[in-house]
Amino acid sequence: MAKLKLTITMSLDGYVAGLPPSLENPLGEGGSGLHDWAFATRTFRSMHGLEGGETGLDDEHAARGTANVGATIMGRNMFGPVRGPWGEEPWRGWWGDEPPFGTPMFVLTHHARESLATDGGTTFHFVTDGVEAAFERALEAAGGKDVAVGGGAKTAQQYLRAGLVDELKIHVVPLFLGGGSRLFENLDGGPTGYELARLASSSAVAHSSFVRAAGG
Amino acid sequence: MAKLKLTITMSLDGYVAGLPPSLENPLGEGGSGLHDWAFATRTFRSMHGLEGGETGLDDEHAARGTANVGATIMGRNMFGPVRGPWGEEPWRGWWGDEPPFGTPMFVLTHHARESLATDGGTTFHFVTDGVEAAFERALEAAGGKDVAVGGGAKTAQQYLRAGLVDELKIHVVPLFLGGGSRLFENLDGGPTGYELARLASSSAVAHSSFVRAAGG
Repeated sequence: MAKLKLTITMSLDGYVAGLPPSLENPLGEGGSGLHDWAFATRTFRSMHGLEGGETGLDDEHAARGTANVGATIMGRNMFGPVRGPWGEEPWRGWWGDEPPFGTPMFVLTHHARESLATDGGTTFHFVTDGVEAAFERALEAAGGKDVAVGGGAKTAQQYLRAGLVDELKIHVVPLFLGGGSRLFENLDGGPTGYELARLASSSAVAHSSFVRAAGG
Repeated sequence: MAKLKLTITMSLDGYVAGLPPSLENPLGEGGSGLHDWAFATRTFRSMHGLEGGETGLDDEHAARGTANVGATIMGRNMFGPVRGPWGEEPWRGWWGDEPPFGTPMFVLTHHARESLATDGGTTFHFVTDGVEAAFERALEAAGGKDVAVGGGAKTAQQYLRAGLVDELKIHVVPLFLGGGSRLFENLDGGPTGYELARLASSSAVAHSSFVRAAGG
């Protein structure tokens, strides 16, 4: 049966994104270091049409993050930095003309917008009626494959609170952001009902995987 | 040169102690599971006069936590559950008549009290003039060895904010407490000035070690 998988990378001090960008730190304070481990893998480089990259544990985890995924849900802040109405020449995502996903993407937003087809097979759909509706549409679009939720923190929290997450993968990077978007808050005492499937680390990142507990 | 080492175990959702004890959960919600990894090690069992226990990575890290430690600082909540003045028959610690430490212990408190000598060589000193004074006294008592800070969260935060921590070891246990004492808050955008010395995990706990960054 198709599953909802939440996969997210967090700093050791609990943030999935750094402090907001500033003139001094256009990428936000230290936030880019969160994803160095993924960028280094063969799986990530191959997704972006690049050769080489590391194999081994981190690459296995990067590959599992995309394996059998038929559709992906993300919050609007992961799609782009634009706030409010989309405007006349709307933002088309961080990923250029040919986003690397190749699957339907569902973007949670308060502002309706036509679906956006791009080269390479990735289509972005904009969902204004909440996380459950987005999940139902993504599940249908995935055609029997799994649905991934990528983040950010608020989107992850909404799916956890709604009890919709079947598998939870947290990649913890040993660095301190000192502020930003905290993953584990606004969860009403949760997450509950999960059991550890696996913990393993490279020298760069610790991967924890959880599944729904038996009877949970 | 003697160092100040902060060593603490944290849940994946960022807590070093669970929610307060209740009638339903005398040990606090799930908090005891944080230390199962340590209890299982040969080092911990040996400290408590028990045979056996696991060797391997977690045991190495448990051993490093106590190696070359000449004195330990802890917050009052780690010493006991009693609040306010100590009273006529004051609390003597969680550890019975023969605490396993064998080194001077410095307890941060707002309420003055005579030092408490116990069998087995452990003496508890009660420090009312703040974290820097406690460090100075512990350093002197350690006789050239290192000083350990054990917790809880507020004590750890005070030492981090004061810039006194030379080595930072965080053991992250893949469980969710859902609430309690959060380690990484009230740190004024820190910790800053550390670099990763080592990340490694068993299937039970991920160990991260940081040292002061060069020039930091």
